[in-house]
Amino acid sequence: MATDPSAAIVTVGTELVTGQRLDTNGAEIASALLTSRFAVVEMLSVADDAARLADHLARLCAECTLVIVTGGLGPTHDDITRDAASRALGRVLVRDAAIEATLTRIVALHHEPDAATQIMTQADVLEGATVIMPTTGTAPGQIVPTPGGSLVLLPGPPAEMRPMLSTFLSQRHPGTPPVRLRSTGIPESDAQIAAQRVIGDARGVGLTVLAAPADVEVVLFDEGAGPRELARLGASICTELGDACYSTDGSSLPETVLALARTRGVMLACAESCTGGKIASALTDVAGSSDVFEGGVVAYSNRLKTTALGVAAPLIDQYGAVSEQAARAMAAGVANLTGAQYAVATTGIAGPTGGAADKPVGLVWFGLSTPTGITARSQGFSGDRQGVRTRATMFALDLLRHALSERE
Amino acid sequence: MATDPSAAIVTVGTELVTGQRLDTNGAEIASALLTSRFAVVEMLSVADDAARLADHLARLCAECTLVIVTGGLGPTHDDITRDAASRALGRVLVRDAAIEATLTRIVALHHEPDAATQIMTQADVLEGATVIMPTTGTAPGQIVPTPGGSLVLLPGPPAEMRPMLSTFLSQRHPGTPPVRLRSTGIPESDAQIAAQRVIGDARGVGLTVLAAPADVEVVLFDEGAGPRELARLGASICTELGDACYSTDGSSLPETVLALARTRGVMLACAESCTGGKIASALTDVAGSSDVFEGGVVAYSNRLKTTALGVAAPLIDQYGAVSEQAARAMAAGVANLTGAQYAVATTGIAGPTGGAADKPVGLVWFGLSTPTGITARSQGFSGDRQGVRTRATMFALDLLRHALSERE
Repeated sequence: MATDPSAAIVTVGTELVTGQRLDTNGAEIASALLTSRFAVVEMLSVADDAARLADHLARLCAECTLVIVTGGLGPTHDDITRDAASRALGRVLVRDAAIEATLTRIVALHHEPDAATQIMTQADVLEGATVIMPTTGTAPGQIVPTPGGSLVLLPGPPAEMRPMLSTFLSQRHPGTPPVRLRSTGIPESDAQIAAQRVIGDARGVGLTVLAAPADVEVVLFDEGAGPRELARLGASICTELGDACYSTDGSSLPETVLALARTRGVMLACAESCTGGKIASALTDVAGSSDVFEGGVVAYSNRLKTTALGVAAPLIDQYGAVSEQAARAMAAGVANLTGAQYAVATTGIAGPTGGAADKPVGLVWFGLSTPTGITARSQGFSGDRQGVRTRATMFALDLLRHALSERE
Repeated sequence: MATDPSAAIVTVGTELVTGQRLDTNGAEIASALLTSRFAVVEMLSVADDAARLADHLARLCAECTLVIVTGGLGPTHDDITRDAASRALGRVLVRDAAIEATLTRIVALHHEPDAATQIMTQADVLEGATVIMPTTGTAPGQIVPTPGGSLVLLPGPPAEMRPMLSTFLSQRHPGTPPVRLRSTGIPESDAQIAAQRVIGDARGVGLTVLAAPADVEVVLFDEGAGPRELARLGASICTELGDACYSTDGSSLPETVLALARTRGVMLACAESCTGGKIASALTDVAGSSDVFEGGVVAYSNRLKTTALGVAAPLIDQYGAVSEQAARAMAAGVANLTGAQYAVATTGIAGPTGGAADKPVGLVWFGLSTPTGITARSQGFSGDRQGVRTRATMFALDLLRHALSERE
């Protein structure tokens, strides 16, 4: 929208353009800028080439209100961001006394004397810049005035970049945060059609629909409609999406499941074969999960299904490990082992090998144990091994969500 | 190097610059171009803005030998790549009869008649382009002559993009694949110094060092030295890196551990607390892991440590769950439960809460069960919750690697 200030993001490093390191800073910063109501027009990764970077910075700093650069602020000869920014803006580099003092102490403690000269270049900042002192690492961030507005230089390592980005953005008016509706088990195009149907001719609302495997997010952002209207439309879209919509505040599916369990005062467990630990990982990724997650068994071999979960060997012989019977027995077994009130089990064929005519790659059986009993269902998933495992993990978490959401 | 042809990669889509979708195409294409001996100078993500994209394409097509664009080739009004390329190169769009015939059949079978006009725009190709017929999906790829060399337009969805990229690159001379040495437990800077010390003044070799948490990769690429010299240098650097170097062919640490177990004819298991399933997930991510991985227990609660792994409740009361004693008991317990010859256990404090003066956040105890007995060690890990879990997972896998590598 014309009124949103424009922004560009530049990530510096040859490892990014050789594809060896996936750039996560760009997406992370872009997401933060979206929340802060910037319109990101361009996101660029460049090699460690000072001349090329200087050309891009000169162009972007003239055009955009905000340009954020990450990387190239280290102490090696490949770290070219300071020089490139200096050239692009015609501002000399001056040595900052506070940073220099910090680096002198570090050099004395940790590095070979020969490295001192290089390390000290991290104390050079552009004339007129505001320094952002590092909370972790040694490279400072810099906020530099430009023809368009501001240029912000941040270190490359995400753990160093994040606190500085947060500090910088929190000093600005944050704007209305976007409304994020997340759903699973619905195609991206269906979610988009549903959202557009609700929005209709309403003005001042921006819509983006984002899709990860089995995880579709509808994002509404404020282009003038205001927070109350945004919330109203969000609630309507959530109703339109129906059962597929699992959160309205951007919470992930694992976070949603854990919150439901916490509200009900129950414990969760999982028994995994083809998902191989991904369900447990997803739940334990969330801080505080130990309040409601007992744990689980990754019963990858048939033997372990029997010894740890009590799945009778004759049952596996008769019906196979990928069967309704095995799924039910695994769910009952892990519930019994852990005492958890709600448990989910997975057993299936992730691929690429192992499929057969009657049990193709992508087939997964799910067992569910709840206070009312044991149920099971099967589902076929498309995609490669990673895709099947990821989608089956989301499906299992969604089974828990539904079970935890039912009124008793 | 001056003799390497230059390349640029452009990924199109507003979802990329709002940070909602992480761009994986760029890194994937860049990696493929590295192998094909292109020097990627720039990687760019742009919003669905035909004018901006046209400006960039005009600039890059004049400068670079190869420009690859993904995204924006779909049937909706947001799909602006065809128009932008047409403008940038001054080539009109013409309707390709073969694509049109395919789309006509698809429209008749699957879509509402109203959508037909939009869908048919996918049959428009730049005058003079070579069409790459789609093997999956409906959008064709295009190879278009430019002042610098070639512009290649590919669909955005990775599953559609990959086969076309592969087709295009295989028609060119593939070049010597890079040598990839992977290591863990060594700082990135130490690996770089070691590699540079070995390479010395040798000519015709390019070096990149890439770091993920606890996973440093030294990449050597052929800039004229030839495959034999590259392999020789790779072997020397591996020796220089010593024990930290776990693979010399780009294999990941989980792949390496599974291969060692397969060679020895043994089974593996894991008992996880703070890593919460990540070790099991990492191993089962690899197809064929069921040959050597029995499974494991995610003993997240103290209760489950006792009931599933036989860790005595009084032991946990006396020493705590995060202790040498608990780690040993967990390793012994899961080895006993699964019959695996090699098992690793983790118990620690991933954070952000749960730390204390004597047991800070990041402390993890590791238990190891091998045919020769049970051992344990502790390690402190920096970073946030995700960082501690990831690094502890790598450390646990590396303990298995060392144990499996010992001569008996």
